[in-house]
Amino acid sequence: MSYRIERDSMGEIQVPENALWGAQTERSRQNFNIGIEKMPIALIQALALVKKNAAKANEATGKLDTEVSQAIQQAADTIIKGEVNEQFPLSLWQTGSGTQTNMNVNEVIAHLAAKAGVNVHPNDHVNRSQSSNDVFPTAIHIAGVQLIEQQLFPVIKQMIQTLKKLEVENEKIIKIGRTHLQDATPVTFAQEISGWCSSLEHNYQMLELTLNELKQLALGGTAVGTGLNASKEYIQAFYTHLNQETNNQFSEDPNKFHGLASKDAVVFTSGALKALAANVMKMANDIRWLASGPRSGLGEITIPANEPGSSIMPGKINPTQCEALTMIAIQVMGNDTTIGIGASQGNFELNVYMPVMAYNLIQSIELLTDGLRSFDQNCLVGIKADQEKMNQYVEQSLMLVTALNPHIGYDNGAKIAKKAFAENTTLKQAALATGLVTEAEYESWVKPEMMLGK
Amino acid sequence: MSYRIERDSMGEIQVPENALWGAQTERSRQNFNIGIEKMPIALIQALALVKKNAAKANEATGKLDTEVSQAIQQAADTIIKGEVNEQFPLSLWQTGSGTQTNMNVNEVIAHLAAKAGVNVHPNDHVNRSQSSNDVFPTAIHIAGVQLIEQQLFPVIKQMIQTLKKLEVENEKIIKIGRTHLQDATPVTFAQEISGWCSSLEHNYQMLELTLNELKQLALGGTAVGTGLNASKEYIQAFYTHLNQETNNQFSEDPNKFHGLASKDAVVFTSGALKALAANVMKMANDIRWLASGPRSGLGEITIPANEPGSSIMPGKINPTQCEALTMIAIQVMGNDTTIGIGASQGNFELNVYMPVMAYNLIQSIELLTDGLRSFDQNCLVGIKADQEKMNQYVEQSLMLVTALNPHIGYDNGAKIAKKAFAENTTLKQAALATGLVTEAEYESWVKPEMMLGK
Amino acid sequence: MSYRIERDSMGEIQVPENALWGAQTERSRQNFNIGIEKMPIALIQALALVKKNAAKANEATGKLDTEVSQAIQQAADTIIKGEVNEQFPLSLWQTGSGTQTNMNVNEVIAHLAAKAGVNVHPNDHVNRSQSSNDVFPTAIHIAGVQLIEQQLFPVIKQMIQTLKKLEVENEKIIKIGRTHLQDATPVTFAQEISGWCSSLEHNYQMLELTLNELKQLALGGTAVGTGLNASKEYIQAFYTHLNQETNNQFSEDPNKFHGLASKDAVVFTSGALKALAANVMKMANDIRWLASGPRSGLGEITIPANEPGSSIMPGKINPTQCEALTMIAIQVMGNDTTIGIGASQGNFELNVYMPVMAYNLIQSIELLTDGLRSFDQNCLVGIKADQEKMNQYVEQSLMLVTALNPHIGYDNGAKIAKKAFAENTTLKQAALATGLVTEAEYESWVKPEMMLGK
Amino acid sequence: MSYRIERDSMGEIQVPENALWGAQTERSRQNFNIGIEKMPIALIQALALVKKNAAKANEATGKLDTEVSQAIQQAADTIIKGEVNEQFPLSLWQTGSGTQTNMNVNEVIAHLAAKAGVNVHPNDHVNRSQSSNDVFPTAIHIAGVQLIEQQLFPVIKQMIQTLKKLEVENEKIIKIGRTHLQDATPVTFAQEISGWCSSLEHNYQMLELTLNELKQLALGGTAVGTGLNASKEYIQAFYTHLNQETNNQFSEDPNKFHGLASKDAVVFTSGALKALAANVMKMANDIRWLASGPRSGLGEITIPANEPGSSIMPGKINPTQCEALTMIAIQVMGNDTTIGIGASQGNFELNVYMPVMAYNLIQSIELLTDGLRSFDQNCLVGIKADQEKMNQYVEQSLMLVTALNPHIGYDNGAKIAKKAFAENTTLKQAALATGLVTEAEYESWVKPEMMLGK
Repeated sequence: MSYRIERDSMGEIQVPENALWGAQTERSRQNFNIGIEKMPIALIQALALVKKNAAKANEATGKLDTEVSQAIQQAADTIIKGEVNEQFPLSLWQTGSGTQTNMNVNEVIAHLAAKAGVNVHPNDHVNRSQSSNDVFPTAIHIAGVQLIEQQLFPVIKQMIQTLKKLEVENEKIIKIGRTHLQDATPVTFAQEISGWCSSLEHNYQMLELTLNELKQLALGGTAVGTGLNASKEYIQAFYTHLNQETNNQFSEDPNKFHGLASKDAVVFTSGALKALAANVMKMANDIRWLASGPRSGLGEITIPANEPGSSIMPGKINPTQCEALTMIAIQVMGNDTTIGIGASQGNFELNVYMPVMAYNLIQSIELLTDGLRSFDQNCLVGIKADQEKMNQYVEQSLMLVTALNPHIGYDNGAKIAKKAFAENTTLKQAALATGLVTEAEYESWVKPEMMLGK
Repeated sequence: MSYRIERDSMGEIQVPENALWGAQTERSRQNFNIGIEKMPIALIQALALVKKNAAKANEATGKLDTEVSQAIQQAADTIIKGEVNEQFPLSLWQTGSGTQTNMNVNEVIAHLAAKAGVNVHPNDHVNRSQSSNDVFPTAIHIAGVQLIEQQLFPVIKQMIQTLKKLEVENEKIIKIGRTHLQDATPVTFAQEISGWCSSLEHNYQMLELTLNELKQLALGGTAVGTGLNASKEYIQAFYTHLNQETNNQFSEDPNKFHGLASKDAVVFTSGALKALAANVMKMANDIRWLASGPRSGLGEITIPANEPGSSIMPGKINPTQCEALTMIAIQVMGNDTTIGIGASQGNFELNVYMPVMAYNLIQSIELLTDGLRSFDQNCLVGIKADQEKMNQYVEQSLMLVTALNPHIGYDNGAKIAKKAFAENTTLKQAALATGLVTEAEYESWVKPEMMLGK
Repeated sequence: MSYRIERDSMGEIQVPENALWGAQTERSRQNFNIGIEKMPIALIQALALVKKNAAKANEATGKLDTEVSQAIQQAADTIIKGEVNEQFPLSLWQTGSGTQTNMNVNEVIAHLAAKAGVNVHPNDHVNRSQSSNDVFPTAIHIAGVQLIEQQLFPVIKQMIQTLKKLEVENEKIIKIGRTHLQDATPVTFAQEISGWCSSLEHNYQMLELTLNELKQLALGGTAVGTGLNASKEYIQAFYTHLNQETNNQFSEDPNKFHGLASKDAVVFTSGALKALAANVMKMANDIRWLASGPRSGLGEITIPANEPGSSIMPGKINPTQCEALTMIAIQVMGNDTTIGIGASQGNFELNVYMPVMAYNLIQSIELLTDGLRSFDQNCLVGIKADQEKMNQYVEQSLMLVTALNPHIGYDNGAKIAKKAFAENTTLKQAALATGLVTEAEYESWVKPEMMLGK
Repeated sequence: MSYRIERDSMGEIQVPENALWGAQTERSRQNFNIGIEKMPIALIQALALVKKNAAKANEATGKLDTEVSQAIQQAADTIIKGEVNEQFPLSLWQTGSGTQTNMNVNEVIAHLAAKAGVNVHPNDHVNRSQSSNDVFPTAIHIAGVQLIEQQLFPVIKQMIQTLKKLEVENEKIIKIGRTHLQDATPVTFAQEISGWCSSLEHNYQMLELTLNELKQLALGGTAVGTGLNASKEYIQAFYTHLNQETNNQFSEDPNKFHGLASKDAVVFTSGALKALAANVMKMANDIRWLASGPRSGLGEITIPANEPGSSIMPGKINPTQCEALTMIAIQVMGNDTTIGIGASQGNFELNVYMPVMAYNLIQSIELLTDGLRSFDQNCLVGIKADQEKMNQYVEQSLMLVTALNPHIGYDNGAKIAKKAFAENTTLKQAALATGLVTEAEYESWVKPEMMLGK
């Protein structure tokens, strides 16, 4: 491999000849040879977006020549389009401020500009009016917002659609309700599905609420929060340009010392993602239990058979999409632990656990996005109720006794249910045997279809 | 000890003679002899509040006689006032639906009513139109809302007051900023304090956002979410009465299947509490580091000396309030782990991890409330800046070099800072020695008081 | 209330007249009015045990008069016996070194001694050759060891006994195996139980391994690890006396700087407790699923009906012991999160998250102890197999096809299983219909009782 | 792209022409298009190791022809050498049993064998006497053991070496001890370092203890734990061959039902990794605090300046290796949360959270390995004490007063320390002024070099 010599404030260093990065990136690449996890591309792209709009704002406030600004903007666009992803080789496990990745972006932009014939300095031009310390948390927030709004939200919406469709299909199908895993009073399958659907709607709402916090950005704080070397006009111009370009409503964190040193919005968002994870774990568990069998389980539904389930048991079909999704759910929970600890470890003017927090936040969003999409397309859409089985469970249920409560009281109801269980009879047989109700009363009071609410 | 005989649907059981509870409470007391953790009183009180307003709603819709309803309401008030706390002896570690504690409340109310001369049945009257399955999650939400609004919020507000006052006191005091624990550009002490203050303001906002979710209640779902045995009119009356009494805006969860089986709002709220915990951990760490010394630490502030710090080192004073608060912060983080797992473990129409989730949520809120109050009163109010020390750090700092960036560029700035460090000189000496700036330039460009923003 | 005046190195303070504690306890009581969690009694007792043996060691090495030493020992015994538990009123949420509780113990001992007519100083005598910084972590380790060995181990052993008995009872009962919640090849119920039992045996082993670390104590390090004011002879005498008294094998941590500042053994032990929690959560889930029904679940076993299960559905019986135990399991997981964070937050010569770590460790051990005992006595012992149901599942299973693999290959096996499922026939019917096996072959190859291993 | 047609028990499917994988891998690749996380290569290699030794054992017990066995072994070796890593394209987020990756390995081996001219069936030959359900957990354990023994242990040992060397270099250097971040009695820098070193030694021990559990393998249990289709002789031969090849002491889990359904050994190991993470987090924090400054921090040591620290503050050097390592530490903590939850979610004969547990376990080990190596090489080896600064702190310390305790008592000591602090004098000046000690006494009693233990 051939190398060229690059220089930074620490001196000279060899850089792979064709790399678009410079000295500081190279130092980090050599000093942090750790793991296989790279800085997430979504974060790199958010950084490039910041660089682009910082260039516009610097230009607008007379801090950068138009030529330099334009060159920076074009280079940033190249990064945003994902055309030079291989130019961001840095390990996630680097400086906790993300400075090295900020410099990686600065250097690649400077090199792309140089290739386009414009002389651009990574610090003095690309990083002008900025510091890693405001740019990096800004990029985390932007990446989070964009991934949630553009990736996760559409998938949740699609899943809600699928569930609404299933609700319609299963509106009239009565099945046994279960609490404590024990038979309870009946529900329609549509009602059960509506619970899953409502959970997603609640999660969508919660995530929207967290965006209020996530859209407040640290940019403008520069090195320590005071905004040293960044003018008020520049800051204002930055937000105007950013919102124009993204068609969004990002705003300045009213306190930049908070913006640099607290990562509370990331914790808050991760908490909402965990709430989503918890809900979809419950849904996936419900579905695989309902589909359990084929002959020794609950067997109330069938789900698509997408692949052989066992390397040794021929013909076995497993609820694999449920399994992938629930594994993702617990990964999100672990990620949330890491994020919470990271957020607690700021000191004075900075938090230096930013890359690990960004990584976990982005992994959680991306896994939920992909996992829910896969689950929706490969499992949810194909759910079919086994009406016969559902019907059979309802008919033999003892918990229909609950309908008698208003008429004969809880204690008498209990007597009937226990009698039926002990004697292995139907509820009706037991009820009549006690003499507490007449057949006519029983028939008029105990009707599964009347026990379903509205 | 003498006993009386009580009966429930399972038969007879001995109950301590003077106990106000009945058979089902007693069964649980004997069957779950686990740990020292009781069901939190805040939850018992919220349950009583539900009972009271359910009685009103049942009365209003003709499901309960006025006499019975009044008796229930009066008994519930006795519980709410905390007058019979010892009548709730059940372990937290009981059935996961909280049914046994719901019955404990039902039974105590029935006994209190009996003492007042009214015959009230725990299930048929006190629990009328209800099930543990809607009542218990409702009580968790109400307890959470009330503890946050009535206990935690006032303490956060008070702390914000204290910090605002400190900001005013320290408005002119310039100190060194620190990032990566390394000297950075200067800030005012007021600015540093404003970061802590802003963190609390953000946390307050986040918690307020979570109340949107927490104020949606499961009540009306009864046993499985269908609302069996509860009329629409009753449900509407319940919410009207509840909001009248609490002067709050609780509302029906639009989907009761979600309300019974999902605990997402608890996860969401716990996430916001974790964000608060993370922020106050950072603040408490900042404060104890600033107060470190007295002679071999940073020593920029003093905090109140409330007690001897060491059993062996005489005269030692430790930042004990910071220690209590940071221990609370990590307890809240562990609690959040438990809550997330619990929420993921619902099945079909119910989640049976409710007591443990209630316990952790309430512990988190109560500890943050008490911990922040104690921290505010016993530490924060007494913070004093050591101006001399702060001044000395600023004067000798090398990072003032950042002010030269716009004039001589980053690389030249780095040369000067390194030279000063290597030769152990002041920044100015090094700057002049390089010939990159004149003394007049240096004096006009490098002014700590000009590096503070706004 | 009447008060007396006490003095410490900070001056005078009013103490409740009859309290056995002194000035420093009182300061903490007033300054840390936080939460309802007190320092665990098990830890207080372990501290008293340390004080007792420190007195012996001081006496043996000429650092304390026999009279003073005897008085300390007797007072410590009073505490160990639990006779003055109300004299330890301090909040858990205090100084992170536990100094205030160490002083609480010192002061109570001094007062008990004074009552017995001997003049004893809390610091100069009771705390002689010690510091909170070595005494407190020592007490955490001792409490952990004793609770595990004396409380948790006997319960685990008892539970293993119960399971072994169940294995014998169910040795011949063949049931369907389940993987991915789907029908798999058969097992005996005894084999399934043996998996639960083996899990406990593994957990027992793991916990024993952790005791290797937990039995290494910090005592001898005093204030910072150097052992200032503690002689080598004293330290040696302490361990000799401690092991005599406890009939155990505690030893000096070979490095006291580690002993004071690292809490790795607590993390390690908590990890083993979490492994136990995970295993019992799986077992409790298995049991409640096997007992699910009574008519719409798996219904393979029955468990004891200990109490009414529902406040609205008469006659419902729920797996409440499983619920209590699984709630405990997730509490242990949250506690483990807290413990891990706490252990990471040491600085220099000390870790000041000790009370919260002690609290979570002790809560985890005590809850597992009580929860397993309750589960064993109130659920496990009463498990009964429903042989008819188990038999029926095996007979209709398709996964018996696996027995054909060695004879006809996986792909042909799959064809048969799918055919049977699609056509809703028995496996045998489908097998013969394919012509891949003869009836005689089928009968000799597919025998559930031959598919059970050894 | 061109494709070929492959077949499995579900029918035909297009597979990329040059892929060595088959139908089942391809189904998974299409059905689980989730995230960027692939099944870890270390796990693939462990699976190949299992396949190789299973082939040997099958051959030895007459279940496979020598030719087929040899072909499998050679193909497995190709995988183990990492020559065909790109042939394992499956997402981590797949079936929870890892069946699809087991089949991926089976299929690649079959194809490699075919290329070598031997006809090998992925299920009937490569998977003979096995099931994913015993093979996959076996591979997790083997991968864990090998990564710990071969990767992590050497790094820990190297780090211990570095620290021992630093101890020798700093044996005579006295510095201030710090507890609660406050000045305490003196230590040598070597003693402080010895605490870090001892922590690693303890962690090494703990990890070794966990290997006792991790070396017990599920292999032999096949589909549900009964060992169906696997002979006793085969199982025995497998372990003999495996141990010969690896020169290790793997053994059969005495209970395969445990082996398949419990993941307790993974939790236990992860707990030990968390204990390591906690200790190194403390060490890295100590080091960055000791190196804080250069002029406004503790400044007791310098660490290597490996790269520019700030994109805006020229000349700034940050403790970046500490930052990378502490980020890794909290990632390990989050991973441990995920692992614990995963282990708790087994059902009946299997746990279907295996890939996510494997991923987190392996990530934790690999990150700690790389992170510690990087920290050792790029930071630890270059630590230099600033003796002048250390000396100055000790000289001005007030906590030397502790040396007076045995002579004048704690309360008098406190008076002196407080007087010195209040009057800003030296300890000696205050001591003499009180008249409690003479100058001669002070000189003979208060000697930092006598306060260091042994």
